[in-house]
Amino acid sequence: MSLPPLSSLSQITRLADKLPAADTKAAEAARARQNSLTKPPGSLGRLEELAEFIATWRGTARPEIWRAQALVFAGNHGVCAQGVNPYPQEVTAQMVANFRAGGAAINQLCAVNGADLSVIALELDRPTADFTEGPAMSETDCLDALWQGASAVDEGADVLILGEMGIGNSTVAAALAAACFGGRVAEWVGPGTGSDKAGIARKVDAIERGLKRHEAILGDPPAILAALGGREQAAICGAVLAARSARIPVVLDGFICTAAAAVLHAADKRLLDHCLVGHASAEPGHRNLLAAIDKRPVLEFDMRLGEGSGAALALGILRAALACHNGMATFAEAGVSEA
Amino acid sequence: MSLPPLSSLSQITRLADKLPAADTKAAEAARARQNSLTKPPGSLGRLEELAEFIATWRGTARPEIWRAQALVFAGNHGVCAQGVNPYPQEVTAQMVANFRAGGAAINQLCAVNGADLSVIALELDRPTADFTEGPAMSETDCLDALWQGASAVDEGADVLILGEMGIGNSTVAAALAAACFGGRVAEWVGPGTGSDKAGIARKVDAIERGLKRHEAILGDPPAILAALGGREQAAICGAVLAARSARIPVVLDGFICTAAAAVLHAADKRLLDHCLVGHASAEPGHRNLLAAIDKRPVLEFDMRLGEGSGAALALGILRAALACHNGMATFAEAGVSEA
Repeated sequence: MSLPPLSSLSQITRLADKLPAADTKAAEAARARQNSLTKPPGSLGRLEELAEFIATWRGTARPEIWRAQALVFAGNHGVCAQGVNPYPQEVTAQMVANFRAGGAAINQLCAVNGADLSVIALELDRPTADFTEGPAMSETDCLDALWQGASAVDEGADVLILGEMGIGNSTVAAALAAACFGGRVAEWVGPGTGSDKAGIARKVDAIERGLKRHEAILGDPPAILAALGGREQAAICGAVLAARSARIPVVLDGFICTAAAAVLHAADKRLLDHCLVGHASAEPGHRNLLAAIDKRPVLEFDMRLGEGSGAALALGILRAALACHNGMATFAEAGVSEA
Repeated sequence: MSLPPLSSLSQITRLADKLPAADTKAAEAARARQNSLTKPPGSLGRLEELAEFIATWRGTARPEIWRAQALVFAGNHGVCAQGVNPYPQEVTAQMVANFRAGGAAINQLCAVNGADLSVIALELDRPTADFTEGPAMSETDCLDALWQGASAVDEGADVLILGEMGIGNSTVAAALAAACFGGRVAEWVGPGTGSDKAGIARKVDAIERGLKRHEAILGDPPAILAALGGREQAAICGAVLAARSARIPVVLDGFICTAAAAVLHAADKRLLDHCLVGHASAEPGHRNLLAAIDKRPVLEFDMRLGEGSGAALALGILRAALACHNGMATFAEAGVSEA
């Protein structure tokens, strides 16, 4: 892997200068090609923008998706002790088994859009600590999970789809978002897998206590990841960084996946320049998060499942964008008169 | 074909009672299945709604898309004499050749999403009459084009994608919309393939003169189709009706395709109950049209190309929706605990 090894979390804040930047020449060549194709210029709308985005990060005017990798990271969370989720914590392992048996939404969406899915369970029988009582992870545990995420990235992939599973992790995501971007905690908290009003109130209360307990590190995004995050959140950060080092564009999923990656944005916003957000989740905090990291989602389908489902759905759109970009005839090739 | 033959256009207004209606039992069975799958109920958002929509019209709890048919109808328009389009009229035939050679956007989008594309050129060397001077088509010509559209539908298809091509037909579409739904003509007119301000003014002027010339029939949607429409618009109406008679759900494309089908809505709104709109076009009149026919588009991608491109893009979403609907495990099958 070309990502430089990290001996401390604080090194994240100095990574952007060492990682590949946007290839503006490839972007210009892709734009020139779009303008030569048999259609009024701009008439494919966001499909044109998406083709150019992939060209920018793959560093070629006519990128193709031969291999799409999907990674779903799973973790368990000590904050479940605060009654923040209506499902029992065993569901995390049960859903990992469901992923492995091919029965979940993410399996179908990866199959229909041609992504190779790997599911990485991160010590499910050793949940993180309850962040209302202390740091969720030690720096070593957090670095280890981050490194597992980075190591899972296939450098031969052309695009990376990211997702997560972890009972309780919409609370973790809201805590990370509130810690990184401020604002009222209640504005980051929603029903998640289906919390009622009392459940939402327990989530808000747990996060407020967590923020208070960790207020000394609230200006330090990498430290926030360890104090309030979980293993799957750290792994997502690692995968985003490893993808960047290999010039692989990333498609983030919904609220929880975006909140994990947003820690990198808070550390240095350039770290998410190679990332798209696959969809706008129905989880209300996602809109705030998209505004905070200044990303327009590819799709809006009122989905709120996680698992990478919205990102895998968006992969089909990326394939369509590149099919047009690479397969269409130019005006000259087709002998079509221009305006 | 199971669509009853039409000896006059006015029979369209009495068709809805003779055509298949929504299968509410299949819809309920599909909803029950969705609620048994390994996800929080409702968490796949619009994917669940789309799966249920297809179940409703295919009349089965677990519909599949084995065959997706895409039909693109092309026609030429006498109103081009009014200078309403920046491209020369020969481009219609040139683009038909491009479709047949596989070089257009619709070819790539059908290929990537698995649709069988047929392109039907409707007497391109015999444009309709200029509607500012008289009816665009005789009733016989209009019925003939409608019947060609109906005959092109493969009754063995599971879903039908509709599109069009015809230089000048954004003016035709705006004329149909204004005639069917009223309002200021300027609110239905946009740049189309790329008209400038003067070109848009010419479009508005031509439509206003056309509406004035045909004001006697403005309360009669089938007569509007003949007076202001074109052959590809009539063919789209025919295809929509033939699909309904075979319980095939239809995906309409953008402004021009929707405006054609909207004539049926104006005649009897039930006639579009089996239709989705694939995307919201960047052509400004499309929003008004979607409101007038009360449809929420599947996608919003700022596209404005026509050819069925937005509908073919939406096919990928339908395939994803059914992949989840049919392929996911239930809670019982997967041994996952419920909330």
